[in-house]
Amino acid sequence: MAIAATEPTSVRSFGPATALSCRECGERYELTPRFACEFCFGPLEVAYDFGTVTRAEIESGPKSIWRYRSLLPVPDNVAELPNMSPGLTPLIRADRLAAELGLDSLHVKDDSGNPTHSFKDRVVAIAVEAARTFGFTTLSCSSTGNLAGAVGAAAARAGFDSCVFIPAGLEEAKVVMAAVYGGKVVALDGNYDDVNRFCSELIGSPEGEGWGFVNVNLRPYYGEGSKTLAYEIAEQLGWRLPDQIVVPIASGSQLTKIDKGFQELIAAGLVEDKPYRVFGAQATGCSPVARAWEQGHDVIQPVKPDTIAKSLAIGNPADGPYVLDIARRTGGSVEHVSDAEVVDAIKLLARTEGIFAETAGGVTTGVLRKLVREGRLDPKAETVVLNTGDGLKTLNAVDAGPTATIAPSLEAFTAAGLA
Amino acid sequence: MAIAATEPTSVRSFGPATALSCRECGERYELTPRFACEFCFGPLEVAYDFGTVTRAEIESGPKSIWRYRSLLPVPDNVAELPNMSPGLTPLIRADRLAAELGLDSLHVKDDSGNPTHSFKDRVVAIAVEAARTFGFTTLSCSSTGNLAGAVGAAAARAGFDSCVFIPAGLEEAKVVMAAVYGGKVVALDGNYDDVNRFCSELIGSPEGEGWGFVNVNLRPYYGEGSKTLAYEIAEQLGWRLPDQIVVPIASGSQLTKIDKGFQELIAAGLVEDKPYRVFGAQATGCSPVARAWEQGHDVIQPVKPDTIAKSLAIGNPADGPYVLDIARRTGGSVEHVSDAEVVDAIKLLARTEGIFAETAGGVTTGVLRKLVREGRLDPKAETVVLNTGDGLKTLNAVDAGPTATIAPSLEAFTAAGLA
Repeated sequence: MAIAATEPTSVRSFGPATALSCRECGERYELTPRFACEFCFGPLEVAYDFGTVTRAEIESGPKSIWRYRSLLPVPDNVAELPNMSPGLTPLIRADRLAAELGLDSLHVKDDSGNPTHSFKDRVVAIAVEAARTFGFTTLSCSSTGNLAGAVGAAAARAGFDSCVFIPAGLEEAKVVMAAVYGGKVVALDGNYDDVNRFCSELIGSPEGEGWGFVNVNLRPYYGEGSKTLAYEIAEQLGWRLPDQIVVPIASGSQLTKIDKGFQELIAAGLVEDKPYRVFGAQATGCSPVARAWEQGHDVIQPVKPDTIAKSLAIGNPADGPYVLDIARRTGGSVEHVSDAEVVDAIKLLARTEGIFAETAGGVTTGVLRKLVREGRLDPKAETVVLNTGDGLKTLNAVDAGPTATIAPSLEAFTAAGLA
Repeated sequence: MAIAATEPTSVRSFGPATALSCRECGERYELTPRFACEFCFGPLEVAYDFGTVTRAEIESGPKSIWRYRSLLPVPDNVAELPNMSPGLTPLIRADRLAAELGLDSLHVKDDSGNPTHSFKDRVVAIAVEAARTFGFTTLSCSSTGNLAGAVGAAAARAGFDSCVFIPAGLEEAKVVMAAVYGGKVVALDGNYDDVNRFCSELIGSPEGEGWGFVNVNLRPYYGEGSKTLAYEIAEQLGWRLPDQIVVPIASGSQLTKIDKGFQELIAAGLVEDKPYRVFGAQATGCSPVARAWEQGHDVIQPVKPDTIAKSLAIGNPADGPYVLDIARRTGGSVEHVSDAEVVDAIKLLARTEGIFAETAGGVTTGVLRKLVREGRLDPKAETVVLNTGDGLKTLNAVDAGPTATIAPSLEAFTAAGLA
């Protein structure tokens, strides 16, 4: 099924996308539900012929990721289809946090503003359109929690059946959110890497036939959703790339796609070419990429995750080597912080900016603080830190409750020393 | 402090607002932190001199409620100040829910997209700007939960101290969210009406001096935030009023302000004048306004709330009589649904549209279904239903969990009958 040229009949359903292309050997394939190269087993990516894309065209588009549809593998009429229309989440000027950390200019890209309150709505939205085009009727995924909710909601909105797979023992909010939309939620005894292995097995079996696994056989499409984070940050900064960005690492895909998004904006002439530094953030309890970085290795040694940052708890991150490449090329690095630092950073972000982040946002904010303290980030340069999820989904991470419980009287109020 | 004319010195800080005006007797006051008429004890409202406001001006504004700043009592530069910039939440075309209910055209206004995931961010944002102008340093409120989180976050972002009051026994997520931003959270043994009484006592005491209670002494400003729901719905429908709208009732303020917002749009020539019907929604366990409606009374008989819809559990709703007026004038009504119907409606909305609503959204969706079933809503007319909060904050209302928990193997998957 490898092809040499673009496939004209696919152009409409996949917008500017022309083919799948192997990231390793460059072999090209039709736009089909496949994810690995037949020849070298490298991961497949979407290849495009963008044509001319203008700022004005984007700015006059929908208030969602669909304003960037000319840069995404989606149908031209995607904004009219029943989907979650995620994105265009706030880029928040964080002056109080910047002051506390000693930075001149800091923004928080707060992706808890998405429909199911994590960045996963972005990637799922693209995968759903691919699933629709390919005629799948069941949507599936392996998930650390946020993705399961995003798939459940998107499937409901778009009229798909869904069956999602999660490791047992996830946060209650994530499990409820995965299940409330009425699809099947299967908890597997094991960690995320076990769930992932199970899904690879299922997809090759008769039971998984006709299923669209958003992060397996639809992965090349799915991954492109993360580029929209880069597009939005640049547009929201006034069509300018930030100097420094701190990104969480689970599989590593998001970080690589943010870099891809920045590069595409430069190539399309939508922003000026300039250097930017990409920093990856992991929790110490699941830091295989940060460890490879520390040790100067190119290969990622898988680990068994043990951290409260469950949404980042992927012990065998597929895109780890690409993350190392990007950190090296851009002059960034890959760092990790302990669970205690994660909790502390969640509270810091809440107290200074009124943003209640998931543990993943504690990881990025904690790593940002560490980088500033250790002098490895330029405090004068324009910095963006990502919060990719919502504190409401990881409530137990923070130990927060009433200051006091009293009788409803002034006497009780005064007696409690609250006045 | 009553004044006869507008107060030019206030114009800049409060934008187009010119005075406070008594809703009952029309007496006018300077724009100060007060909420009741000295003469007749009626509630005070913000009066304006809008001048010319155009659709183009609004459409080119910020992607938040600040696009409507020419219609709100806020400083001209409000979008540059450190606040939560809520609003412009999605108006979701709900074709699958419409089909299931038998409606031709239905939209869900989903206010869970706000920064702290309830509509309260709208009202707090206006109150915070008033508090800033008045020089208050502590923000406070009586809250059924969502407001406490909204005040905590907004205070953190804007650099205020905060001390919020809630009834003991609220949902965990609401308590954690209220506390995580670092302000004081005081739980009072009693229900919301007890909390409200306590705050009125506190505000008249030396202990409450210099405090801005967003829903007490800042209430006239605060209330105006709800108008933005009306503005957004009209703009998102293509500058058109809906034919029918279903709105939850707690204090009743939101419903009255949505009506006010529609009327202002008509008066400003931003939409065509046309009839619209406003329907109020309560949970049976706290339905004093619906009962007054049923019985044809003008006076609200307070009740002791007993419902899972805690965000609507105000037994003595201040704006109840105004709600009855509006329902009567517009040809709407005020209805109630049981807690079981609330849960069922939450699941219906989730299953058909991928929207996970708080119990309050179950109340409005449940009432919508009831109105259609009983033939009291025109199924051919353009209908909007409000979801004002987030299912993540009332997790326990829905009994949702994994379909199955199994070993990560194909055999286990097949054996569990999941294939």
